[in-house]
Amino acid sequence: MSSSQYGRFYASQVGIGIKVLSAKEKKAMRETEQIHLSFGDPTPDTFPNDEVVEALALALKEEPDRVLQYGAGEVAEDLAVFLLERAAGRGMVASREQLLVTNGATEGMDLIGRIFLDPSDVIMTEAPTFMGALSVFRKFGVQIQGCEVDGDGLRTDLLEETLSERLECGEPMPKFLYVIANFQNPTGTTMSLDRRRHLLELAERFDFLIVEDEAYGELRLEGEDVPTLWALDEGGRVLHLGTYAKVIAPGLRLGWVLAAEELTAQLMAMRPGYSNGASESLAAKYCRMVDFDQRVASIRSVYRQRRDVMLEALEEHMPAGITWNRPEGGLFIWMEIPGEVDPDAFVEEAARRGVALLSTSIFYPDGVGGNGLRLSYSQEPLDRLRRAVEIMAGLLEEMLDR
Amino acid sequence: MSSSQYGRFYASQVGIGIKVLSAKEKKAMRETEQIHLSFGDPTPDTFPNDEVVEALALALKEEPDRVLQYGAGEVAEDLAVFLLERAAGRGMVASREQLLVTNGATEGMDLIGRIFLDPSDVIMTEAPTFMGALSVFRKFGVQIQGCEVDGDGLRTDLLEETLSERLECGEPMPKFLYVIANFQNPTGTTMSLDRRRHLLELAERFDFLIVEDEAYGELRLEGEDVPTLWALDEGGRVLHLGTYAKVIAPGLRLGWVLAAEELTAQLMAMRPGYSNGASESLAAKYCRMVDFDQRVASIRSVYRQRRDVMLEALEEHMPAGITWNRPEGGLFIWMEIPGEVDPDAFVEEAARRGVALLSTSIFYPDGVGGNGLRLSYSQEPLDRLRRAVEIMAGLLEEMLDR
Repeated sequence: MSSSQYGRFYASQVGIGIKVLSAKEKKAMRETEQIHLSFGDPTPDTFPNDEVVEALALALKEEPDRVLQYGAGEVAEDLAVFLLERAAGRGMVASREQLLVTNGATEGMDLIGRIFLDPSDVIMTEAPTFMGALSVFRKFGVQIQGCEVDGDGLRTDLLEETLSERLECGEPMPKFLYVIANFQNPTGTTMSLDRRRHLLELAERFDFLIVEDEAYGELRLEGEDVPTLWALDEGGRVLHLGTYAKVIAPGLRLGWVLAAEELTAQLMAMRPGYSNGASESLAAKYCRMVDFDQRVASIRSVYRQRRDVMLEALEEHMPAGITWNRPEGGLFIWMEIPGEVDPDAFVEEAARRGVALLSTSIFYPDGVGGNGLRLSYSQEPLDRLRRAVEIMAGLLEEMLDR
Repeated sequence: MSSSQYGRFYASQVGIGIKVLSAKEKKAMRETEQIHLSFGDPTPDTFPNDEVVEALALALKEEPDRVLQYGAGEVAEDLAVFLLERAAGRGMVASREQLLVTNGATEGMDLIGRIFLDPSDVIMTEAPTFMGALSVFRKFGVQIQGCEVDGDGLRTDLLEETLSERLECGEPMPKFLYVIANFQNPTGTTMSLDRRRHLLELAERFDFLIVEDEAYGELRLEGEDVPTLWALDEGGRVLHLGTYAKVIAPGLRLGWVLAAEELTAQLMAMRPGYSNGASESLAAKYCRMVDFDQRVASIRSVYRQRRDVMLEALEEHMPAGITWNRPEGGLFIWMEIPGEVDPDAFVEEAARRGVALLSTSIFYPDGVGGNGLRLSYSQEPLDRLRRAVEIMAGLLEEMLDR
């Protein structure tokens, strides 16, 4: 057994360029001094291990004949009710027919790809963007065009230019634009309300759909909520992807899509199999038995503290010329290094010194990286986050001196 | 909420012609006198409700940081080890690189479709065959050609004729043939060893792959095991689909594919998301903590008794001219009614009298039914199975008199 599913999946998830690690190697890595700023895995400190056992027992007690059967019973159906209530509480009022519960948000992306994409199609994403989404959409053989992101999120002014040019040249419009408006992955930026409105106008004018991935939607660490694209949309053009990977746990594979009824029906019809009734029933009971708002608040406070410690350490240790942002939520700080430092060389040497980062190129649709590095503060405790920043700062000082 | 995921899924699973039922309607149906001989859902009597809670707790205790995380940890990896051991015990010796654990066998079918099928392709199946497989493969827009089944399974002599004719006419060979060699769905027949060998010869000669679905492989109720196509194959031409839906529970979504290493790697690379680490870890612990052979034996004895009671009732009540088979395993008896009785009218009137059956047409690639009815003995207790046979027998007598 030279390679496990875990390791292999990571490889397929992040695309070319990432070493395939077996579960054993991964474990060894975790047990060494290697500090992981690489992936956005939630910290196991937030996993409700005891409660999920209790929740499963409760679900089985309530529906002993249904929880382990094909499809979803009434307990699992209550998860849908809960999700709709919670979405409504965040300004997204949807009917049951607009909701599809999926095996993680990734299944939602994949279903969207299966319904809309042919190899001759074009889609657009932010550049940089979530490598997992690139990996899913690349499977459909489409052309992926990136659009720049700044501190206010997607540069809709540049998007407008690109779309106008495409139109003038007779090139096809993108089938959809994939966007992470809240606490973008990897840059951590939040798209401003004006840009959201502008984006929706452009979608209407140039006739494309928007796939809004809100993986970190519940993880606002400061500031005021900005309405989601789904909430602002009046034309049924937005497909909204949600997940409980970050506020319950990834291993339960709980995601969802909110979309116009006819789109949801198409996604549903494309699904190749049954939903995971056991996971959904367990999650339904979990969501009802805990004080969900309090849980989310407590998870936010874990990540707020980690973010703050990392920001402080960056402030304290980083040499001049290095810049980073202060994300209002999510799990990532985006750090930019001067052009004279080769980011690949930096990532490689940082790994040698015990800090694991992802190569910048994997976040770009064209595979050509920039000078930004994603620092994930989700996986490591405070002292290790501090140490990682010290190591990176020392390395940057050396590399800048050369 | 006029329609739930459960109801909607059934509709998408079985294709056109089945009424969409909401969870509420389904529940109402179960609570009325309606006796279900329709689906092959395992009886909840066999669901290990208490043990799955215990198994989840054990998994979480052993790997508190990994079970609810992305991907599979070492506990989940042990499920793969268990599956390989058990496959080897049934004559299927495979390496870890040949195994892909999937979200139910349906995901395996879908991945196979995604890798091999283009809309211009042809595949073959038995006729009749599992409607769920037809539904998955139809999504790829391929042409599906059926081949007759008799008491010894797939008529490989007719298959040979068809393939020779295709070759002569310059028509493309099927990309693969989908076959349920053991306890076929819906006919309950088992393919003879000679026919299995013949099929493998044909696959070699005419150069196509074989997708062997062994959903009921562990459910032999009498007689001697026949080696699987995978075990007999020497050319790496067989992709073997397995599932624990029938011997643990469907709601955990646990299936797998055994295939040549390079095919397994392709299937893995096509997967859109993470495996369900929680389900896999739970199942790994369950498989190790119970006496699995004893569990399978006890599930077999439940279905053996149900099969026998239904066979006795058929013998006792059915009018002359009605024939049925005695399946050596699985969950279905195949009953053929004389040509003078319209099977659709029979199914419709049986439903009115309280016996739910599936329309015969949904089992055929061309959607044109025969005169065979699938009687599932998996879902109902003995007295209700007897009553269902009495009702059907009475109805057939009336219809034959007309």
